[in-house]
Amino acid sequence: MTDRYQQFTQSSLGRQLTKRLGLPQPTPLRRYQPGEPLLTGPVLIGGNGKLCDAIGNTLREIGAAAHKDPATGERYAALVFDATGIENSEQLRSLYDFFSASIKQVDRCGRVIVLGTQPESLSDPRAATAQRALEGFTRTAGKELKRGATSQLVYVADGGEGALGSTLRFLLSGKSAYVSGQVIRIGAAKVPATDWEKPLADKVALVTGASRGIGASIAETLARDGAHVVCLDVPAQGGELAEVANRVGGSTLQLDITAEDAPAKLAEHFDERHGGLDIVVHNAGITRDKTIGRMTAAQWESVIAVNLSSQERINAKLLGEGSPLNEGGRIVCVSSMSGIAGNVGQGNYATSKAGVIGHVQSHAPLAAEKGATINAVAPGFIETKMTATIPLFVREAGRRMNSMSQGGLPVDVAETIAWYANPASSGVNGNVVRVCGQSLLGA
Amino acid sequence: MTDRYQQFTQSSLGRQLTKRLGLPQPTPLRRYQPGEPLLTGPVLIGGNGKLCDAIGNTLREIGAAAHKDPATGERYAALVFDATGIENSEQLRSLYDFFSASIKQVDRCGRVIVLGTQPESLSDPRAATAQRALEGFTRTAGKELKRGATSQLVYVADGGEGALGSTLRFLLSGKSAYVSGQVIRIGAAKVPATDWEKPLADKVALVTGASRGIGASIAETLARDGAHVVCLDVPAQGGELAEVANRVGGSTLQLDITAEDAPAKLAEHFDERHGGLDIVVHNAGITRDKTIGRMTAAQWESVIAVNLSSQERINAKLLGEGSPLNEGGRIVCVSSMSGIAGNVGQGNYATSKAGVIGHVQSHAPLAAEKGATINAVAPGFIETKMTATIPLFVREAGRRMNSMSQGGLPVDVAETIAWYANPASSGVNGNVVRVCGQSLLGA
Repeated sequence: MTDRYQQFTQSSLGRQLTKRLGLPQPTPLRRYQPGEPLLTGPVLIGGNGKLCDAIGNTLREIGAAAHKDPATGERYAALVFDATGIENSEQLRSLYDFFSASIKQVDRCGRVIVLGTQPESLSDPRAATAQRALEGFTRTAGKELKRGATSQLVYVADGGEGALGSTLRFLLSGKSAYVSGQVIRIGAAKVPATDWEKPLADKVALVTGASRGIGASIAETLARDGAHVVCLDVPAQGGELAEVANRVGGSTLQLDITAEDAPAKLAEHFDERHGGLDIVVHNAGITRDKTIGRMTAAQWESVIAVNLSSQERINAKLLGEGSPLNEGGRIVCVSSMSGIAGNVGQGNYATSKAGVIGHVQSHAPLAAEKGATINAVAPGFIETKMTATIPLFVREAGRRMNSMSQGGLPVDVAETIAWYANPASSGVNGNVVRVCGQSLLGA
Repeated sequence: MTDRYQQFTQSSLGRQLTKRLGLPQPTPLRRYQPGEPLLTGPVLIGGNGKLCDAIGNTLREIGAAAHKDPATGERYAALVFDATGIENSEQLRSLYDFFSASIKQVDRCGRVIVLGTQPESLSDPRAATAQRALEGFTRTAGKELKRGATSQLVYVADGGEGALGSTLRFLLSGKSAYVSGQVIRIGAAKVPATDWEKPLADKVALVTGASRGIGASIAETLARDGAHVVCLDVPAQGGELAEVANRVGGSTLQLDITAEDAPAKLAEHFDERHGGLDIVVHNAGITRDKTIGRMTAAQWESVIAVNLSSQERINAKLLGEGSPLNEGGRIVCVSSMSGIAGNVGQGNYATSKAGVIGHVQSHAPLAAEKGATINAVAPGFIETKMTATIPLFVREAGRRMNSMSQGGLPVDVAETIAWYANPASSGVNGNVVRVCGQSLLGA
């Protein structure tokens, strides 16, 4: 689960050498294991706002000890600060007071979570300004924490207080190991009763591109959470696809998603075999790298078709008339850091993945009308067979240039998708969350 | 105007050596000189949408040769593509067709400009998706172009067609030398008749922190464009401040902007001495770097007060009752890359600069009500006395990790501010534009 350099840094010699030379010392990340507690130590909570009750409730439910005053020498598994009460820039002082006194006590793989209110929803411009300012703080904290700890900002709309639980659990747990420096928005929503061990029990999920890499990990993770997973890939991947489906107790569907009749065939399959569909993960994607001046029309078209247009056509079916998508449906799209920042040699890919962001943002209101959600993950450097073929120096730069000083694992992307897919995540709609260890690269 | 490494790369030995070793070879950037033409070669225009006329008009006004078909062997000073007609992801093909055929013909310090429609303003979600996808393309183009060329995406709202001129001129010219990979939004607006040589004639401008560095350059640039510049700084900077004011034919104002009566004093000064105020540039800013756990309360408070709260109080006066701000007023705030991405040791600074973004976004509608605009620049690595003190390796990383492989100059920030300040930029409101050479760093 760790790369060779990381293994070396954990040896006695490696530890000394990397320390002397000032080289990155990646901490093995805490990752979720079923049956283990979400947190391994107490949580220090601070701030004063509309979310204090919701935070307290979730911590009680997961059995975490909640402290209100920092105790000398204590190591905290998480610092959680309710900043929704901050109404102007002078009051940001309370944010400083809390964290300057406690941030050194964050444990290895600990968590910093600041909760605020969407700036764009506030009518008082000074309050909106102060709430927007929180982002500069949490991103800085993420870069200062080190040792596998993460930092996030969660904006909660009025009416979204009761919908905070799934997100708070995700961020506190090892499921968000490689998610840091992110801004998450939670809208007003009702949340059904949730079995937190098997949140996807009785749900039917479709995962495209499921035969390997990140797709296979998504299938495994959704199955772990109780879903029946229909693993989809092109016929050429049939063998590997069947292996994955067997492993997760799911089924297979061989289909070219770019085919004109793919949306209709999908609808038919789920209507007939499963009486509907609850979760769709658009994971299938291809790269055909060339600089813009050397790219062929076929390279452009195939990437746009697989990564964007086919998803658009399938989602039009899912959010339109005669849809197989059940009430409370979840659509998850996979974008990319390239789609956010652009990337040399990936004009086609970056365009398609920026389009995925536009797709999620423009379809979120349509999803909400149907009681569904649509969100995206944007992976950074994830350790897969694909990234293993990148030349050494480029690979090492991608791996180390983030707050974790290491690449993420496919399961980190999968856990983020499982958080979106959770029925309790009904308030999470239209989000784009990077799974990048707070990569330095951005836009 | 160039750093030592860059000078070396331009020597015969340096050119060979950097080429062999694959080291960055920063191109001396084309910068604007009064009296010189905005462009040094023909422009290739493509695409089909609502902006073709506006593009043609601007090119005619500046006397640029506009080609519609790429000529073999021609070098283009700019490629301008009207993408507003693209309604779905399949039609993105026209973007590929145009640029794949022409991007190799972009001249040294050339320009790529793609024009679209704000995705959030479109009711058709497929159109919104395709328009959002443009961003992945232009950011990739910026990274592939090299040799000092830049790439931008400009979204133009319906009714903003006639307000495109000032932005197109800025982006085509050497004034935007260090601006690349940006997304600019132009709203519906009426544009007054403009003297493009002296757009700020008869205007009164206030520049805070004007005694040195970027502030002094802003004063010079606004004065070049015809404004009377009131140079403001704290009394301790009085000597340097007077020098700058003399150089630009302006006047001085010694004032502590964090003082409680500063907004009232400012209003009084401009009402009495100048009969009002047209342009305000909130450039004054301080750093007090420490990691969050080591930062003193005084370090937190002083940075928030100078960089954010004082600007808020002044702008409340400017956008409120009894304001000295004239019709068509321009407020420009200075944010920072740190405010976007966070930065180790700058928890206070990043919070204040993220707050500046929130301030601009929340006040843009209030400014519009008064016929004014408010926008921000976010400088990346700019060569100043301050950055000259950064340790060598950190400095070199900041300097080279961008599409220009060099730091920007204070004048690059100043020119961006002058573009905002232009009376013809009435459609430019609520924008945050990075002046960072398309730095790799982001959020």
